Parts: sequence; C-alpha cells; structure tokens
Amino acid sequence: MQHIIQQLAEIGQLKNICHEQGNSVPMPSVETLSEVVRLARSLLFPGYFGEAAINEQTLLYHIGIHVERLQGLLAQQIKSGLCFDDTLPCDANLERTAQDKATAFIGQLPDLRRLLQTDVEAAYYGDPAAKSYGEVIFCYPAIRAISNYRIAHALLRLEVPLIPRIITEMAHSETGIDIHPGATIGHHFTIDHGTGVVIGETAVIGHHVKLYQGVTLGAKSFPLDEAGNPIKGIDRHPKIGNHVIIYANSTILGNIHVGDGAVIGGNIWVDKDVPAGATLRQNALRAEAKGKE
Amino acid sequence: MQHIIQQLAEIGQLKNICHEQGNSVPMPSVETLSEVVRLARSLLFPGYFGEAAINEQTLLYHIGIHVERLQGLLAQQIKSGLCFDDTLPCDANLERTAQDKATAFIGQLPDLRRLLQTDVEAAYYGDPAAKSYGEVIFCYPAIRAISNYRIAHALLRLEVPLIPRIITEMAHSETGIDIHPGATIGHHFTIDHGTGVVIGETAVIGHHVKLYQGVTLGAKSFPLDEAGNPIKGIDRHPKIGNHVIIYANSTILGNIHVGDGAVIGGNIWVDKDVPAGATLRQNALRAEAKGKE
Amino acid sequence: MQHIIQQLAEIGQLKNICHEQGNSVPMPSVETLSEVVRLARSLLFPGYFGEAAINEQTLLYHIGIHVERLQGLLAQQIKSGLCFDDTLPCDANLERTAQDKATAFIGQLPDLRRLLQTDVEAAYYGDPAAKSYGEVIFCYPAIRAISNYRIAHALLRLEVPLIPRIITEMAHSETGIDIHPGATIGHHFTIDHGTGVVIGETAVIGHHVKLYQGVTLGAKSFPLDEAGNPIKGIDRHPKIGNHVIIYANSTILGNIHVGDGAVIGGNIWVDKDVPAGATLRQNALRAEAKGKE
Amino acid sequence: MQHIIQQLAEIGQLKNICHEQGNSVPMPSVETLSEVVRLARSLLFPGYFGEAAINEQTLLYHIGIHVERLQGLLAQQIKSGLCFDDTLPCDANLERTAQDKATAFIGQLPDLRRLLQTDVEAAYYGDPAAKSYGEVIFCYPAIRAISNYRIAHALLRLEVPLIPRIITEMAHSETGIDIHPGATIGHHFTIDHGTGVVIGETAVIGHHVKLYQGVTLGAKSFPLDEAGNPIKGIDRHPKIGNHVIIYANSTILGNIHVGDGAVIGGNIWVDKDVPAGATLRQNALRAEAKGKE
Amino acid sequence: MQHIIQQLAEIGQLKNICHEQGNSVPMPSVETLSEVVRLARSLLFPGYFGEAAINEQTLLYHIGIHVERLQGLLAQQIKSGLCFDDTLPCDANLERTAQDKATAFIGQLPDLRRLLQTDVEAAYYGDPAAKSYGEVIFCYPAIRAISNYRIAHALLRLEVPLIPRIITEMAHSETGIDIHPGATIGHHFTIDHGTGVVIGETAVIGHHVKLYQGVTLGAKSFPLDEAGNPIKGIDRHPKIGNHVIIYANSTILGNIHVGDGAVIGGNIWVDKDVPAGATLRQNALRAEAKGKE
Amino acid sequence: MQHIIQQLAEIGQLKNICHEQGNSVPMPSVETLSEVVRLARSLLFPGYFGEAAINEQTLLYHIGIHVERLQGLLAQQIKSGLCFDDTLPCDANLERTAQDKATAFIGQLPDLRRLLQTDVEAAYYGDPAAKSYGEVIFCYPAIRAISNYRIAHALLRLEVPLIPRIITEMAHSETGIDIHPGATIGHHFTIDHGTGVVIGETAVIGHHVKLYQGVTLGAKSFPLDEAGNPIKGIDRHPKIGNHVIIYANSTILGNIHVGDGAVIGGNIWVDKDVPAGATLRQNALRAEAKGKE
Repeated sequence: MQHIIQQLAEIGQLKNICHEQGNSVPMPSVETLSEVVRLARSLLFPGYFGEAAINEQTLLYHIGIHVERLQGLLAQQIKSGLCFDDTLPCDANLERTAQDKATAFIGQLPDLRRLLQTDVEAAYYGDPAAKSYGEVIFCYPAIRAISNYRIAHALLRLEVPLIPRIITEMAHSETGIDIHPGATIGHHFTIDHGTGVVIGETAVIGHHVKLYQGVTLGAKSFPLDEAGNPIKGIDRHPKIGNHVIIYANSTILGNIHVGDGAVIGGNIWVDKDVPAGATLRQNALRAEAKGKE
Repeated sequence: MQHIIQQLAEIGQLKNICHEQGNSVPMPSVETLSEVVRLARSLLFPGYFGEAAINEQTLLYHIGIHVERLQGLLAQQIKSGLCFDDTLPCDANLERTAQDKATAFIGQLPDLRRLLQTDVEAAYYGDPAAKSYGEVIFCYPAIRAISNYRIAHALLRLEVPLIPRIITEMAHSETGIDIHPGATIGHHFTIDHGTGVVIGETAVIGHHVKLYQGVTLGAKSFPLDEAGNPIKGIDRHPKIGNHVIIYANSTILGNIHVGDGAVIGGNIWVDKDVPAGATLRQNALRAEAKGKE
Repeated sequence: MQHIIQQLAEIGQLKNICHEQGNSVPMPSVETLSEVVRLARSLLFPGYFGEAAINEQTLLYHIGIHVERLQGLLAQQIKSGLCFDDTLPCDANLERTAQDKATAFIGQLPDLRRLLQTDVEAAYYGDPAAKSYGEVIFCYPAIRAISNYRIAHALLRLEVPLIPRIITEMAHSETGIDIHPGATIGHHFTIDHGTGVVIGETAVIGHHVKLYQGVTLGAKSFPLDEAGNPIKGIDRHPKIGNHVIIYANSTILGNIHVGDGAVIGGNIWVDKDVPAGATLRQNALRAEAKGKE
Repeated sequence: MQHIIQQLAEIGQLKNICHEQGNSVPMPSVETLSEVVRLARSLLFPGYFGEAAINEQTLLYHIGIHVERLQGLLAQQIKSGLCFDDTLPCDANLERTAQDKATAFIGQLPDLRRLLQTDVEAAYYGDPAAKSYGEVIFCYPAIRAISNYRIAHALLRLEVPLIPRIITEMAHSETGIDIHPGATIGHHFTIDHGTGVVIGETAVIGHHVKLYQGVTLGAKSFPLDEAGNPIKGIDRHPKIGNHVIIYANSTILGNIHVGDGAVIGGNIWVDKDVPAGATLRQNALRAEAKGKE
Repeated sequence: MQHIIQQLAEIGQLKNICHEQGNSVPMPSVETLSEVVRLARSLLFPGYFGEAAINEQTLLYHIGIHVERLQGLLAQQIKSGLCFDDTLPCDANLERTAQDKATAFIGQLPDLRRLLQTDVEAAYYGDPAAKSYGEVIFCYPAIRAISNYRIAHALLRLEVPLIPRIITEMAHSETGIDIHPGATIGHHFTIDHGTGVVIGETAVIGHHVKLYQGVTLGAKSFPLDEAGNPIKGIDRHPKIGNHVIIYANSTILGNIHVGDGAVIGGNIWVDKDVPAGATLRQNALRAEAKGKE
Repeated sequence: MQHIIQQLAEIGQLKNICHEQGNSVPMPSVETLSEVVRLARSLLFPGYFGEAAINEQTLLYHIGIHVERLQGLLAQQIKSGLCFDDTLPCDANLERTAQDKATAFIGQLPDLRRLLQTDVEAAYYGDPAAKSYGEVIFCYPAIRAISNYRIAHALLRLEVPLIPRIITEMAHSETGIDIHPGATIGHHFTIDHGTGVVIGETAVIGHHVKLYQGVTLGAKSFPLDEAGNPIKGIDRHPKIGNHVIIYANSTILGNIHVGDGAVIGGNIWVDKDVPAGATLRQNALRAEAKGKE
C-alpha cells in the first residue's frame, strides 16, 4: 500500500489534474451553494422555500435575515471562485471584490423576481395539469432550472467565475435541464417536463418561448485554431424568436435563426434557418407488417 | 441593503409568488416525504430499504414500527398538503381527515405490493443484464420511479392534494422518469433505463407494456377557454393497449390509441392511432459522403 | 392497523421481494458508496474533491489518509455485496476476500488516473465553452459519469458483485448518463451534456469517441431460452470504432459495427452497420404552412 | 431472545415505569428545549448566542425571527408537558393553552433581561478574574445556570408542568448547579464556580447574595403523612436575607433564617437561624505530626 | 511545521501514550455507547426514552426492535472493549464471545428493571419535590446515574473490560455522580441532587440507603507493592448497612463499617466504624462578631 | 408580539448585554473549539481520540492531517477571540497574528505531551482501580481536565484572549473540575474523581501533587479600588508545594503556603499557612444517640 501511496502522490503524475487553490482559500462548496440557491429562492418566492411559515407580520424579519445570510455565504463562495482560477490575481482586494459582487447581485433580486413571475405565469398557462401557481412554484422542475439559470446569468454578468456554472449544473443534476449561464433568455419562458433539454452558451431566446423535454439548442461544429484547439467564445448556437414552440426531443443546431411564431415538431434535426410562422414536422413514417423488431 | 430588504418585503410586489400556509401549519417537506417514501418502500420490499437487516423473527417488529412511523409522518404531510391549497377549508376536522387518509393509504399497501411484484417480474424478464430480482429491486431506477408513481396514484385517488405530485417529482429528479400521478397504468409495467420518459396526466397504459428511455406519452395541443386559459382536466394523452413496446426517444402525442401488441420503433413522432399488431419505424436514412458535419 | 401489519408480515406474500442478507452482514449502503466514490475521486483528482485545500507539503498526508479510508470502506461494501447474492458462499474467507479485492482495486488507481486524464483532455478540447481543465474536472457531469464507470468497470473485472452497478446508477441519477459497468470504453472518451445517454452491457467503444446527449447504444432484441426467459450474457450491443462522433438523441441498436471515423447525425435510428468514414443524417423535413400543430 | 422480548413487553411488569403520553402528543424533547433555551438566551443577550454576528441594522430582524421560533418551539414543548401529566385533562383547548402560555412567557422577556443584567453585574464585580462583561456572559457557568433558573421559574409561575424542571436539570448537568425552579431569588445574585451548589424548592434568597461552589440550601427532614408518604409542598428550605455570602461547601439545612449581611464560612453545617451580620466559621483544626493518613 | 509533525510522529516519544487497537477493530465509541445506554433505558422504562410515543398495541414492536439494535451495538462495543486490552488474546472467537456477552446482558434486563423500579420508588418517596413517578424517571439525575451503574455492574460481572467504566463515566459527566462499576449496591437506593457523590470500587451498600450530594465513599490509603506500585484489587472502601442516610458533603473513607440505620450528618469526615443506629454530627460552630472574612 | 419585539430590540435597553464582534468576524464557537481540543488530544495521545485506528505505517499521515486541521481551526478561533475584546485593535494584521499564535502553539505540542505523560503516570500510580495506562487516558476525567488546562495555559501565555477560558470551562462542564487557565501547575499532577475541584487564577502548584474531589484552592477576599471595583490581577490564591495531598472537599483559601509533603485531611477549611510535612484533620465528631435528624 505504501508503494501506491507514493505513486499517487508523485508530483510528476499530476499535470492538469491536481488543483491548488490560491491564497489558501477553500474550494467552492456545492453544499454552501445549495444553501445560497435556497436562500435566493426564499427571497424570490417568499413562503415556499424557507424553514418557517411566514405571514405579513414576520415577512420583513425573514427577508432581512435571509438577505444577510445570502450576502455572507455568496461573498464567501465568490471569493472561492475567484481563487479557483489561477489566472486571476488573488490579491489584497479579493475580500472586498467578493463582497461588492455579492452586494450587486442582491441589488438585482427585485428585477430577477419580476422576470421569474413571468416564467411562473407561462408555466401555469401552458400546462392544463397545473392546479395553481403554488404547485408550479413548489413542484415544477422548470421553475427550479430557470431560477438557477437566471441567478447564474446575473452572476456571470458580474464577472463571477466558475460559480455560475456550478449553479446551473446543480439544476442540471436535479432536473435534467442543462442551460448554460451564458445563454440569453427573454421573459415568459417555460419548459415542459424538461429532462434532456440543452441550451448552449451563445443561444439567444426571445419572449414567450416554450420548449418540451429533450430539446437541444446546440452547436453543430466549431472552428479550431492553428494548434488544433477549439476557439473559445465563437457564436455557435441558435437564435430563437418570440412566441416559438419546439416539441419534444428535437435538435436545433448551429448559429441559425428560428423566426417569430415558428413551431418545430418533435424528434427532428434542424440545422438551417426556419422562417417566421413556419411549422416543421418529421417525415412520414413507414408502417410495416408486424414482425420481431 | 436596507433599501433592497424593504423592496423585497413590499406586499404589492408579491402577487402570485408569495405563499402563506393555512392554519400556521408548516409547508410540506421534501425531506419528510423522502422518509415517507423510504418507509413505504421498506414495507413493500422488506429487507431492501430499512436501516437494519431483517430475518423471519424480527420481520414483524420492523413492519410494526415502520407502519406506525409511516402513519405518523404521512398524516402530517397530508395535513400540510391540505393547508397548501387555500381553496380547501382548513377546519377543525383537518387533523382527523389527514389521519383517515393516511390510514386508508396504509390499508392499500398489500395491494400495491402485489402490483409492484409484477413490475419487478417484468423488469427481470425484460433485461438480459438483470442478474437477480434483488438487483432489480435495489438498483433499477424504473422500480423506484414506478413505486413512487403507484404510491402517488393511490394518494391522488384518496384526494390528497399536492403530495402526490411532489412524490412523483422526487422520482423524476432521481431517475429522469416523469410519470404524472394521474396516469393509469396496468400490471407488469416496465421501463428500460428510463431517463427522459414522460407519461402525461390522462394517459392510460395497459398490462405488460414496456417503454425505453426518452419515450414521451404527451399532449399535442389543448383547448383554451374564453379567457385564453387552458381548460384543466381535458383528456389529452395517449391510450396504450396491452403488450405494447415503444423504443427509445419516440414521442407519442395526443388522445390517440395504440392497439394491443403494437411495436413502435425509436426516434419517431406519432400523433395518429396505431392499429393493434402494427410495427412503426423511422423512414430511411440519407447516407452521405463524409464531410465536416 | 394490526390487521394490515399481520398481512404485510406474512411470509407467504413475500416471494421474490423480501431480502435476507447472508451472515447478518448489513446491506450495501448508497451513502457509504458515495463516500467511497468521493474518496476515489479525491485520489484521482487531488485538490478537487477532498474536504481540505492541499499543497505540495500536505499532499502525501492527504493521499495516505484517503487510501486508508478508501481501503476500509470499500472492503466493507464489497463484503456486503458478496453477501447480497445468495448463490455465493458467505464463508469464513469472506472478510479476507473483500480486503483483497479492495487492495487490488487501489493498486489500479494510478492506471485509472492516467486513463481519466485523457478523458479530461477530450472534454476540454471538445467544448469551446470549457474555460479550463479545472472547470471540466470540477463541474462537468461527463467526467463524473465516466469516473464512476471506470471505477465500476475495474471492480466488475475483480468479480465484485452488485457494487459496480450501484456505482454507475449513482452517476445515472446524478447526471442522467447510464453506462453499464460491463461496457468496454477506450481512452479520450467524452460525452457532451449527457442527459439521456445509455451505453449497454456488451457495448465496445474505441478511442477518441464523442457522444452527445440522448445517444443510446442499446440492444434491439434478445433471444429467449426455452422457458421464455431472456438468455443472459448474449453479445447484443453496438461496437463503435475510433474517432467516431454521434450527435444528440440518436439511437444505435444491436450488435452492429460503426466504423472508424464515422459521423452519425442527431435524432436517427440506426440498426445496421455503418462503414468507416460514413456520415448519416435524418431524412429531409416536411415544412408546412403554419397551422395549429 | 424472543422470550426476553415477550417478558419485557408484559404489561403486568410495567407498573409505574411505563409511560403513555396523552393525546398521542410526543414526549418533551431535551434537544428542542436546548434550542428553546438557546433562543431565549439569544434574545436576553443579543449577539452572544445566536448563529450570526449582529449589528444595529440587523438586530431587529434577528429578534423578530428568534421570537417567532421561540414562540413555536416553546408552545410545542408546553403542550408536550401538559400531556405528560395524566391528571391534567388533555382536552381540545390544549393547543390554545400552550400557545397562550408561550406568549405570556415571551411577554416577560424584557423583565427577565433587566433581572439578568443585575446578575451579570454581580458576577463581574464579584470576581477579580473577570476580564469583561462579555466574558462573564459568554463563559461563566453561573450565568447559564441562573438564566435557566429564571426562565424555568417564569414558566413554573405560568403553571407549565415538567418543562421548568427539565430546563433547570439541563443547567444542572452542564454546570453542576442545581436550582429548583420553585425557589425565589432576588436581583444581583451570583454563584462563584458553582459545581455542587443545591438550592431547594422552597428556598428564598434576597438581593445581592453570593454563593460559592458546593453550597447547599437544603431540607433537613420532612414530615410523612399517615400512609408514610412525604407531604408535598411543605416549606422546608432556608430563607436567606440580603447581602449574604456563603463560602464553599457549606450546608445550610431546614426552614431557618440567615439574616441580612451574614457571612457563613466554608465547609460547615448550619441548621439553626443565623442572626443578621453574624460570621460563622468551622471549629479549630487539629494539627498532627505527619504520619500516613 | 514539517519538523513538528516529524517530532510528534516519532515512535520513541510515544511510550504509554499511543494506542494501537488489536485486530484493526475500531476504538470503543462514546457516541455508540450513548445509544446503547439510550436503548437500554428505553427497554427499562418504556415510553420515556425512545424516539416515539408508545401504546399497548405498539409496545411489542418497539421492544422487539430495540432489543435487536441493542444486541447489535452492544456486541460491537464489547468487541472493541476486548481488543482495547492488549493482554487479552484477540482471537478468532472474539466475535462469538462478544455476541454471547451481549446476549447474556439482555437476558438480565428483566431483573435490572425490577431493581430499578425500587430505586424509582425510593427517589419518589424520599423527595417531597417529586411530583410523580414520571418526573423522577424522566428528570432525576440520580435515576440516570444509578441506571448506568446497574448496567455497567452487570457488564462487569460478565467480564466485559473497559466498557463498564466508560458507561459510568458518561453518567459522571452528565450528573456529577461517580459510581465505580465494581461497587455493590442493594435495592431501594437513592441519591438526592447528587453532584459530587463518589462511590469507590470495593464499596458495598445495603438496601434502602440514601445519599445526598457531595458524599464520598472512598479509600483512605492503599498499600504499595515492593516496586512502589499500588496493589490493585485490595478491599479499601466503606461497607454501608441497610436504611442508612448520609447527608451532604460528608466523606466516609476506608474499609470501615457503617451499621444499619445509622445517620451521618453533613460536612464531616469519617474514617472509623459507625455503630448501628448511631447519629454523627459536625462539632459545634464558632460564631464570631462580624468582620471581614 | 410586535410590541415585545420592538422592546427587545431597543438599543437603550442593551447596555452591557449586547455584543457586536469586531470586523464582522464570527463569535468564537464552542463546537469548533471542541474539535480543536479533540484534534489536540489526538496529537497528544495518538490512537485514542482520532476517528480511525492507527498503526505505525499510517501514524505520520494522521499526525500530518491533524496538525494541518488544528492549525486552520485554531487560527480561526484565535481570530474570533481577538475580535471579541473590543479594546484590542482588529486591524489588518489580525489574520497574520492569529496564524502566528496557532503556529507557536503547535510548536509547543511536543513539550505538552511530555508533561501530560507525567500526569498519566501520576494517575495510574495513584489509583488502585486503574487497570492500565490506556484506561486512564481514555476514561479518566482528570486527564481530560488537565489536558484542557495545559492547552489553555499555553494559549494564555501566547496572549490569546477568551479562548483559554472557554477551553477550561468546557472541561469544567464535562468533568466538574474548574481550573483557571492562569494557574501554574507542576508535573506529575493528578486529581482523583474530581467533581467540584476549583483551582484559582493565581494558584501555584508544585510537582507530584494530588487533589481529591471537591477541593478548592480559592481566594478568601480581595481588595476593592476606590470606585468599589475588585482590583484585577491581585495574587490571592494558595501556593502548594511538592508532594502535597489534599483530601476530599477541603477548602484552601487565600495567598497562603502549603509546604512540601503536607497532607490535608478532608472537609476542612484552611486559611493559614501549613508547614512542610504537617498533617491537618477535622476536629473530633460529636456522636449522638439516634433521633430524627
């Protein structure tokens, strides 16, 4: 056993797979970020995700305490995120920078709430099985995935590294919905069921768009640089207009445009522009006499 | 920060997104419902999901204790569910109603067990990779998703609000299989792999049916009322006969009939009736000379 | 209630669904196996998954402690796995056998690390959104699913029962990627996004292969024996060559060959051999004037 | 083993030692009461015992939340206490009664705080080793024991059964100071070190009294009724005036009076009245030539 | 830091203070032994110390489960205790020996319960402040300390090493009452308040004895062997008759006899035999004009 | 309720009893300090208090990891201690100062271990009931109390505020032994049983001293300054020579000298110097004819 321990600890073997955080700051923590998301959700949807029932008299106290705790935990995680990336200087202003970004994020919570209100509305009106707004907020995976995305997107725009991606991956694991924090998504957005949905980094989605489970808004190919490495940051994902519906398991690839009001049927592969108002469907099926498949 | 706290606590901003439970009863708890499901599973499949090994001598004690705890925790969660919906009266009989529904549910456990025995059988016979019944019960996500569905369906028929949906969403998150508690499903039902499966609220599935991963039994469209709201409760999902197989990633939409013994190939979109005994396949592929995709 | 308890405890009712572990050894524990996987990952990727930041001075101590704990917990779980299968003799050498298998597994960690280094490389080069190796290792679900698969595959080859399947199902639940521990997968393997991917027990995948979300490498049909039971262990899954790409939501079924360098487009169903270098695409779409879908 | 289980479960054997709570209400919980005490202490001494640092801006929120949680948990425990005593009717008003008593208790917190401020002052001025008020509040066992006593005494006067005794026994276990909740104690009370101090149910202590470790204010004897049972509620403990000091390990027994300003030396047994201003000491020692003790 | 680590790990420095458990068995665990004691108490006093309320219908299940868990945890701890002492052979029968001793202990629980019933009675009749049997069982530290002692004494007589001492030290820490597991104590034993009570290894106490807080039954001196080491196992503690009362803070030392019915006042030092029926008191006090103490 | 909340949050009411930590640093944490003490004990007595069994091969790794964690947690708590005292500047060097003090403490661990080895020896030789060194280290409250004292004393000499007092109070609560961190105590020190022992801030104890339970080394009186406040830091506690024994429940008060080799019997009050070699005993008892006490 001693031999294996020595071998596993050999520095030469550890290229690219061993990590030393800057400044002795701890790694970002998925547990703490879960609490961050829970606190943010308790502020966005009061009474649903906190530890205690609320009422009008206690609402202010709950929000006061939760804002305070969110500020503390988020600043700590932002700091960990800043020290994860060794190309950033981990300097004396680190603590201050992290505090400032956390404060800026909290300042956006009222706007995030207004946006999420429209998503809840879209989910409620878009699903005959939805019994109430409450059921949508408390149970629907789409609301959880979209909340995490909108939180992560706001953090990304504040130039917080790594943390946004962890937050969307948490929703990905929980709901099967994978939205990159870099995507741009309008109001009244909803996803039905959701498992298998993928929305790429440079995708842009308009207002009042509805996706079903298994829909991909992905990249079709990407250019390599002279060294054979993929060029980062190229715009390579679909641009979806307003009032578009895309049915289950369809795959929309590349930097193409899907016009306003288009409807894309299920199980199809689309890699060309779709005009406004168009409807796409899978080709006719071949029915056979029954035999063993 | 004080300014943001005030803003977030402003009652006027909270329409539809702030929740006050009736009667100061706490919110339903996902943690407690996980324990409820674990207890139910330990009663349905003794020896697999409890904290301790069992044997013939101790079986009775374990079942006695687990029934008692299940009764207590389930009644508490049913009560929370009843107080979630503010259209229900949260009156003095609440405690009693919740206790009665929990007792009625426990009375159905022997029947649920008989039904799940057939599902385990179907999974075992349907998968050459299955080594034993034990492996199927302990490891297969389909058994977990179908157990949660059958528990939730029983609770829904006892007119328990909200809790059934939470229980199926727990399985959805854990397995990627999304079965609405309102669906009706026969015996010897199985799902292979399962990620991405969606079964809608008004779907009806016969006996001996097998689905593969990514299969959707969904709604194609739904009528709106005069105010533009979706009409709740319309029958809008497929009716699947007995001995039907549906291969991976196919999407079956609308209130159509798939006849007994039909086989539906993978990756296809079906929105018309399928006669008994038919076999459907995707159309021929287009092979190209290779180039960059 | 007493009546239901009696009924649930009736031995006659419990055929195939009640489990008694051999030798009074406890059941395998998903919690402990999560810790086993966490420890293995902390050894494979030092500094990412342990409780504490590491540096060159403390690396040896962390690896020493983690190897020791991994040995203890893994041996305990292997023992539980051996006693789960009642066809294996649960004899006096059980403890020793479990210890030996755990030790043998730890001896393979340096090789597993070299293999996973190539997978990390493939993910990094294959995704323009990847900011750094660190982000890939810490956040990408594919790395988590492939790590679990490679750990489980090594245990399966050491003839450890049940535990490998639990470990891949843990990744399945977390990532939506379902890789059977029996599959054989070459180096530089990567999966993008991943939700809904299924790789079957007898699949063989070459080097430098990339899969997108929703891809199935499954069985199309399987022979039954005279009693109508599926014959276990038949070779029934695809064989994929080197440098192959398969796009989102395609379903590759049966013991067919996909030649080196082939590219398979999204949303298609393939059940015939694909020659080396070929490109397959879905047939042309049918565009319609917009109407209600 | 079955035999022993039967024997232990035999009802006939369980006289006086088996407890069935009224109304299926759970037993009082020492864990929850610890949290109750922690919350009360966080309200009495803000900033010392809560989970988070406070400042002027957040003080109100913390107090609001803590009052709310204290109300909830205390009412629940009072209810459990009321159902512990089977001579009390466990009727429909139980919930209401418990809520009312909890509310009444919270209404006394400002007064309790003023009283405890004097005890902190007495401890600070009475100990040259005390570095600051903060150290006294955060570290001194006397403050913890006296806080628990004052909380328990207030609850006892609200006719809450059992809970007061549990709260003082929690302090007894933590500090070795055993103050019966029925005792009456004036302001500016302090105890130095404290281990072994006992203050009986009917003891009365004036203002500005200081006790050292091991001091007992106990009962010397008590009358029995005709059946040989001790008569409950007889006044049987010392009455201590103002500005009295009692040194370590002295035992003051019976319903005697110790006058204002008396000083009682250490290690003595007192069972007669002590006049105001008197000083009592142990008799002269006998010094011996050294030998083995 | 590396230097200090090396120094602390130097084997030469570790004589007598470094421990290696035999057979790689873990150390005894205070947490597990707390659970053992809690389980034993839940069997001795049903309804007081379990997690759930009990009633006649569920009593059998609770006792069945608790006996099973007690057997498992106690055997595990006995095994750890047997491997702590390196003079005992840690051989192949270890597991069996531990199981047998645990079983033998459980077989004594009915007798232990009968004995503890008398102690509860003695506490109830001996304290006018006791409101009910329930309060005595649930709140009185004496009952907790005597329960732990009686459990530990039974284990010691079964030749279980170390564990009995840990169990009485747990009570010592919780209650301040230190009873050596080797002491012999009759029925109807009670201790009032109890902090500071010490009862030595070879003390023998009759029936119906009552001690107050701070009473010591200790050793006065002990002979050394030729090497200057104390001779282990010498009979060196008091023998107390029946119906004896000893008041607070008295110290009874050496292998002396205190006759039946004797009463020993508080704060005195006794190292000579006390005849039956005698009453001992502290000498007269010296009262002084008040001055500064 | 709102009224009470306002009242409790009124700043004017909070003089001396409300605490605001400097620099937004959290309060010292008793839980973390328990872990600090556990880590220190695992380094001082390897194999007794860690989570895992150790052996020669793994000893170095355990010590390496525990030193690292101790350094981190102790520095964090020292920082909290430094910010507790608002007379200290909470400046930019705070982090550095805390790290330095933690490092200096760890550098003293080898010396602390040598000292504690002598205390273990003294306990083993001084108690015929002690079965082994292992039992003394693992079970004896004296070793726990003396360890905490020696740790706290070392921290106090490094000018760490507050933390030392918390650490000795933790032992006080656990064992009933109250040693002020400021006391000076020689090698081969032991305390038998220990409940109720008090050792004051300016006490000095020589080598090879043994105390029994309930012994106080306290202050008799202390001068006040002109404002009536006790003068802090006055030398007011006993000075005990080498090879002194003090029996149970005796009270030694004031800045007096007890000479080498003196023996002080139990239950006596001593406030004058005791010459070397002297033996003190309580005066003769008064025996009475028995009557009701």
